[in-house]
Formats: sequence, C-alpha cells, structure tokens
Amino acid sequence: MALLFVHEDREYLLDPGETLETDLGVLEVPEDVAAGDTVETHLGEQFRARELRGPDLFHHLERTGAPMLPRDIGLVLGHTGVGAGDRVLDAGTGTGVLAASLGRAGAEVVTYERDPDFAEVARENMELAGVADRVDVRTGDVAAHLPDLGRFETVTLDTADAPAVVERSPSLLVDGGFVAVYSPFVEATREAVEAARRAGLAEVETLETIQREMEFEERGTRPSTTGVGHTGYLTFARHV
Amino acid sequence: MALLFVHEDREYLLDPGETLETDLGVLEVPEDVAAGDTVETHLGEQFRARELRGPDLFHHLERTGAPMLPRDIGLVLGHTGVGAGDRVLDAGTGTGVLAASLGRAGAEVVTYERDPDFAEVARENMELAGVADRVDVRTGDVAAHLPDLGRFETVTLDTADAPAVVERSPSLLVDGGFVAVYSPFVEATREAVEAARRAGLAEVETLETIQREMEFEERGTRPSTTGVGHTGYLTFARHV
Amino acid sequence: MALLFVHEDREYLLDPGETLETDLGVLEVPEDVAAGDTVETHLGEQFRARELRGPDLFHHLERTGAPMLPRDIGLVLGHTGVGAGDRVLDAGTGTGVLAASLGRAGAEVVTYERDPDFAEVARENMELAGVADRVDVRTGDVAAHLPDLGRFETVTLDTADAPAVVERSPSLLVDGGFVAVYSPFVEATREAVEAARRAGLAEVETLETIQREMEFEERGTRPSTTGVGHTGYLTFARHV
Amino acid sequence: MALLFVHEDREYLLDPGETLETDLGVLEVPEDVAAGDTVETHLGEQFRARELRGPDLFHHLERTGAPMLPRDIGLVLGHTGVGAGDRVLDAGTGTGVLAASLGRAGAEVVTYERDPDFAEVARENMELAGVADRVDVRTGDVAAHLPDLGRFETVTLDTADAPAVVERSPSLLVDGGFVAVYSPFVEATREAVEAARRAGLAEVETLETIQREMEFEERGTRPSTTGVGHTGYLTFARHV
Repeated sequence: MALLFVHEDREYLLDPGETLETDLGVLEVPEDVAAGDTVETHLGEQFRARELRGPDLFHHLERTGAPMLPRDIGLVLGHTGVGAGDRVLDAGTGTGVLAASLGRAGAEVVTYERDPDFAEVARENMELAGVADRVDVRTGDVAAHLPDLGRFETVTLDTADAPAVVERSPSLLVDGGFVAVYSPFVEATREAVEAARRAGLAEVETLETIQREMEFEERGTRPSTTGVGHTGYLTFARHV
Repeated sequence: MALLFVHEDREYLLDPGETLETDLGVLEVPEDVAAGDTVETHLGEQFRARELRGPDLFHHLERTGAPMLPRDIGLVLGHTGVGAGDRVLDAGTGTGVLAASLGRAGAEVVTYERDPDFAEVARENMELAGVADRVDVRTGDVAAHLPDLGRFETVTLDTADAPAVVERSPSLLVDGGFVAVYSPFVEATREAVEAARRAGLAEVETLETIQREMEFEERGTRPSTTGVGHTGYLTFARHV
Repeated sequence: MALLFVHEDREYLLDPGETLETDLGVLEVPEDVAAGDTVETHLGEQFRARELRGPDLFHHLERTGAPMLPRDIGLVLGHTGVGAGDRVLDAGTGTGVLAASLGRAGAEVVTYERDPDFAEVARENMELAGVADRVDVRTGDVAAHLPDLGRFETVTLDTADAPAVVERSPSLLVDGGFVAVYSPFVEATREAVEAARRAGLAEVETLETIQREMEFEERGTRPSTTGVGHTGYLTFARHV
Repeated sequence: MALLFVHEDREYLLDPGETLETDLGVLEVPEDVAAGDTVETHLGEQFRARELRGPDLFHHLERTGAPMLPRDIGLVLGHTGVGAGDRVLDAGTGTGVLAASLGRAGAEVVTYERDPDFAEVARENMELAGVADRVDVRTGDVAAHLPDLGRFETVTLDTADAPAVVERSPSLLVDGGFVAVYSPFVEATREAVEAARRAGLAEVETLETIQREMEFEERGTRPSTTGVGHTGYLTFARHV
C-alpha cells in the first residue's frame, strides 16, 4: 500500500518500490517499507513513512476536478450513517475522494464515472487510498445500469442527471436507506428535491453549510476575516 | 441485534424476544426476527422490521444528555478520516452517539465516561447500536489512564478537561493521527487550542459550522426562516 | 407628536390628549405633554413619557403584515446611503417601518401601497412615527405612476412586480442613485437581478445576511443556540 | 462641496477650483461646477460631475485605518435609529466613515480621535463628505471629557476603552438612547457587555453578522464561493 513520505513541509505519496527525484535527492522506496520507517535520499535527507489518513486524500489524490471537501464528505457520512459492511452506489466519481472515503469507512462502493480517462485516474486513486478492493470504479452512465444493480444502503450523487436517479431510487435503496445529492446550484437542487418528493421518499431535506475558522490571536478571538465560501447544497432523502 | 419496528410514524427499537405494549396492541418480537420481516401486534397491526442506520441513533438511543448532532458527528468523521480498522480514544461518552458512530464506521473505540450510571446506559446503547463488540465503554476519568492506553489513530474529546488531554496527546496518537475537541464555548475552545499549540501539534484549526435548511415551496426557494443555532466549536489538531 | 409612555415592561405609544384604559388605571395624556414628563393613571401609577426612537417603530406601529427588521432597514440605509435631503421612492409600504425609517433619516419619501386599508394604516403609522410631513403614502400601484414621479436618490422595492420597476429605474434615479429590492425568495431575486442587468444598472449585487446573537454566560461565550432565520435577500444596483 | 468626477471606471473626488493631473490629461474643476456638469481635461477627455452618496465614502475618504463597511454602518443606523436632529457621540473616529454617515443621516455628531494626525485627516474627510458643519472632530480621549458633554440620543464606540465609556453611558444618554460598540474580538466584546450590565443598561445584545453575495449565473444560482469574512461584533444597549 502507498505511504506518505514526509520531510518537514514536503509530503509525497509513494508506493513500495517507487523512485522519486526530489530537490533533496533521489528517494528509493524499499519494497518492504512500513509506516514508521525512515528512508534516506541519496543525499542523506530523511523522509519518514506514514500511513495515509482520510483527510490526506484531499491533498494527495490526482485531481480530475475539484474534489469534495472533508467537511462535505463528513456531512454525507454523518447524515447517511454509511459504515462498515454497507453497500453504496456512487455516481459522478470525479477525483474519487468521496468514494475512497466511503470505502475507508468500511463500505463496498460501486461508483460510476462517465469520462473514461477520469475513471482510469479514479481507479489509480483507489489504489493510493488503499481501497481498490472495496471501491469498484465503473466507466459509464449510472442511469443506464440502474435495473441491474440491486439494492444499496446509500446512494450518493454528484452528477447533472441526479434528479433522474433520485426518482428511481426507491428501487435502489434498502428499507431505511438514504440518497444524498450534492449540487452547487439552487435550481438543480430544487429539481432533486422535487424528484425525491415525486418518488415518495421521506425525510427530504436540503442543508446548506457555512463553515468558518476561528482565530485565536494574542489580541483576542474572532472568526476568520477570510470567510469560507459556498461549496454545495446537500440534499438527503430516505426510502421508508 | 436490535431492529427498528416501524408502523407509519411510529418507530420502536426492540431486541429479538422483547415485548412492547403499544396503543396498537402488544408487539412480541420473535427471537428469529430479521430485517424485512413484518410482525403483527395482538390486535393485528403490522410493524415492519428494519435495520438501524447511523442517523437513527440520534433518535433511538437512551439519552443521558444532549447527543451530538449527525452533522457534528459527520464533521468529526470527515476531518479525522476515522475508518475501518482505526483505534479511537473517546472521552465524555454521554449518550454515546459519537462512540457508536465511530464504531459503525469500523473503528475500535475505547470511550471513558465519569458518571457510572451514564456509562451503564451508554453500554446498553452500544448494544442497541450493534457495536458492543467494537466500543468499550469504561467508567472513569480518561486523564487518569493515559499512560496505559497505547496509541490511537484518533482521539475525540467532549469533556471539561479536554485541554489537559490535548496537551498529552502526542503520546496518545500515531504519527499523522488527529485529536478532535468539541466544545460549545469560546473560552474552553481557546484553552484547547493553546494546549494543542503547547503540545506542538500541527494543523491546529477550530471550525464553526452554521447549517441551514433550504425550503422549496410553491412560492419559491429560500433558506429556512427558523435558523439552526450554534452547537459547538470543533477543534482539530494533528500529531506529525 | 406621539410619545411612548413607559412603566416597567409596559410601553404605550400615545398622542397628546389621548386616553388609555390600562390595568394600572386610566391614563390621560395631557395636551402639553413632553418627553421626560411623568403622567399618573387615576390609580396613581406613574408612566414616563419618552420620545420614540427608530427601533421602537418595529414594536409600536400598527401591523398590516410582517414589518421589515431593524437589521434589514439598516442594511438598506447603509448600502444606499439614504440621508438628509434625499428623495426616495418606496413601493410596497406595508406597515411602513422602512418608509418611516427613511423619513427619520431625513429623506422625503413617496411610498405606494396597493391595498387602500393598508395605506390608511400606514398613514396613521407615519403620524405616530413623527414623519407624516416627510412621507407621502399613496394608494395605488407604483408601476402605473412611474412617468410622472421625477427622479429620486434611491428607490426601495418590496413588491411582487419589483423587476418591472427595476427595469425602468434608470429613468427614476439620479446619476449615482441606488435601487434596493427586498425579496424572501431566490427566484424572485433572480428576476430582479436580471432586470437590473437588462436595464444597464451598475454594481448589481445581492446580499444574504445571517445574523446571530452572541451569548455571554457565566460558563462561557457562544453564539446563540437559537439561530436567527432567513428574512430576505437584498439586491442593490446603481444608475451611473 | 466636493463632487465625484467620473470617466468610465475612474472616479476622483475633487473640490471646486481643484486641479488634478490624470493620465487622461489635466482636469481643472471650475469654481461654479455643479452635479450633472461635464468637465473636459486639456486633452479633451470628459468627466461627469456627480454628487457623492453614502457608500462612496468608503472608497473616497482618505484612510487612516480600515474604514467601517457599509453593512456595519447600516446595522448601527438600523439598530439605533439615528436620524435627523439626533445628537450622537462617537469615539474612535479613524477614517471617519461612520461619523460622516451619521452626519449624512441628519445627526449632529461629536467624534473623538486620539491621534492628532488622524483627527486632521478626519476633519478633511468631513469636508469631502459634505458634513463639516454637522460633525465636530475633536482631538483627544473621549473618556477624559465625559462630564462636560451633555446627553446624546446615541453613543457609538470603536475604541479599546469602550467598556469604560459604556459603564458611564447612563449619564451620557437620553432616556431611551442607545450605545453601540464595535469590536472585532470576543473578549473585548464580552467586556463591553459586562460593562453594560453593570451600568444597568437594558436590551443588551451582541450581534454577529455573516453576509454573503449571491451569484446568478447562466448555470444556476448559488451563494458566492468566496465568502465574506468577519468584520466585528456589534453590541447594542439602551438606557431606559
């Protein structure tokens, strides 16, 4: 499994056996490297090997678009309760940070990405995230495959055609299962909400989250003067 | 394992073999009940058995105080990346919704509760949540046991003495591990932040989260006119 | 001019010469009453006469609908800079709190209210607010009168047909003048913004304001646990 | 009175008789210039003369520190109801945008600035804002002059020693008058609140305001992805 190799502010995500040329010298990762080991470059600079943790995914996966923020991933986890042993259907894989996070929380994930190149990158990202065995990245359009997929504890959608999938989600969800839709825009969110209502889903709610950092300075405490902007609306609904 | 028994708006969390008198008649849960089964009261009213999901914990665990909201649990999960196989140290168990959620995400959790009665309720709640094998509820003060506990991927604190534990967290955390502190108040949060700085933790940040529901009405779309109030500040820091 | 008569938590807005029966006895306001005077009921209970201030309007004007909150009135004042000597056109008078506040800031206000009964109440409210000489409440639809109105420093709109008025606002505004639109809903706000763009107005911006009360308790400081909900979006644009 | 001279995106605030060298040529403002006039540079470029409006103060006054934002000025106006004929005591003049705005709303303002150079700039700013006759900028420390000042409808404070002035505000305020304190920090705000409580002021409240711009794009509507940060807490209290 890939490990993070850390030297002060530098962090590289590398596989056992991989070689990287850095400005601190060439770093050859031994095949039998383990977290906690120290590896030296040919110039004698030391890198500490560390296991990747969830929030590292945001910084170290190869990006094919803006990855979902840790806070939004957390809100999906908290509001759907995805956990060990769940089956999750995800669509709009993108970089795959959400899919990887679901996998790391113990779920078996099937995720659809339309763009074949993006899907390929996402597959490599699942390797890096250590969840390639739990996250099945499929190239294609989820809407074309719905009848064959069976049922899931949770369905997570970050695609333009989310409303169409939401409308068919009663046949995709177990009793008590959740669908979660991420969308930056009001109008698209409204369509997802209306689809959930038409489909007879329960507990339909859309949450908007504003998050700020607090600053604890010598002079006093205050919310950050640089605000955190909008990311997306999260809509949740339940099949009961 | 306990299941939810659902009849329209009524939901009861019951163990196999348990009997409950309801206004719809006496409900006797068979020993071999499974999710998906329908069970009738002696008056012939039907209840559907359903597996408990994470967000149900908030409503169905026995409360010994205000349980942490799904959104705050989600933010802890998202910002620490707790996942399958992690070891987590939790203090200030309370109702145990956070500990149960961490367990459901696949972590092995040790959680400390000072009040013996609360700890007893929390133990029953872990049974109901189906994580009694993963969440070890201990009665006592975590600060008194720190040297014997080993190392954890994440430490989560919701106690008055959180700053003291934060200050000693470098010896409690694996390389790259996170500590998360939940506190309603600015002053206590500041103390936790200062403890994290003194302890040399990295990536110290305090987040304040404002969440609103969006309303999609016939007349138009707008944020809810009843705002969601403050719950607590979440402070994260990392041992690197 | 009307004065507030205050006894502990009781406050009545009364005109000189008016008589009010209260549970503390009959209060007869002398014709020559002045702020600072004390007036006794026939049971000997004392009421202190006090001048009305802007924020009192919110509580003491007769309501024909939900009056605009002090914060939203303030934002209109702050973002348009309405001041002494300005001419302001207002539409959707309602209770008239905004019109009265504009008048109290020294502006000459023409305000249109479609409902004749509401307009009559608003006229009485202008008397109570002490701005009857500065605020001309007209019964009717502002859109029907635009060509005859001349030019204004600011136009404030809280009506369903705001977009139509916004579109014609270049002929209503002085060089550098502002139009402000208040609307609870996203869709109606979007229409106003698009009308402003079509009309060639500059500095078009829509602001959403979230306001919370801070609580300073013995235990610590925190934002209120009861949030303040959404009121309306404020859209500003400028004729330059 | 100074006027704004506008050419496309360029805006200069100039007095009658003033001469400015610009990259569009030398602009000589006639002594008898009036709003609406067009003035040409010696290169034949045209500038339109326009009256300054409140929000222009933020951009065109000479700065001696960060000026208060239009929204915070508006909130002070809305929550205190400062209007025509009021007497206002202001301390911590700084650039003077608040003092000028209070003056433009019709109030007679006495404002104290400790730094003689800043006070001198503020006096010039009052000239530019057209309120030199209504706003008396005094050099010095307001706390040293309190006994001689008489009573005010509103007291506005943006100084480090605000709590000391708040505590003595009952002798500074008319019956029903407001004190408003602006502070970026929680701790300083708490001191002001506690001073207001000790002084027996009523309706003590501290407001925190989060403001976001809404974006209306082709793709849809959403709150701005660049948030607006914290400015300051506003504390209001009333002498009744």
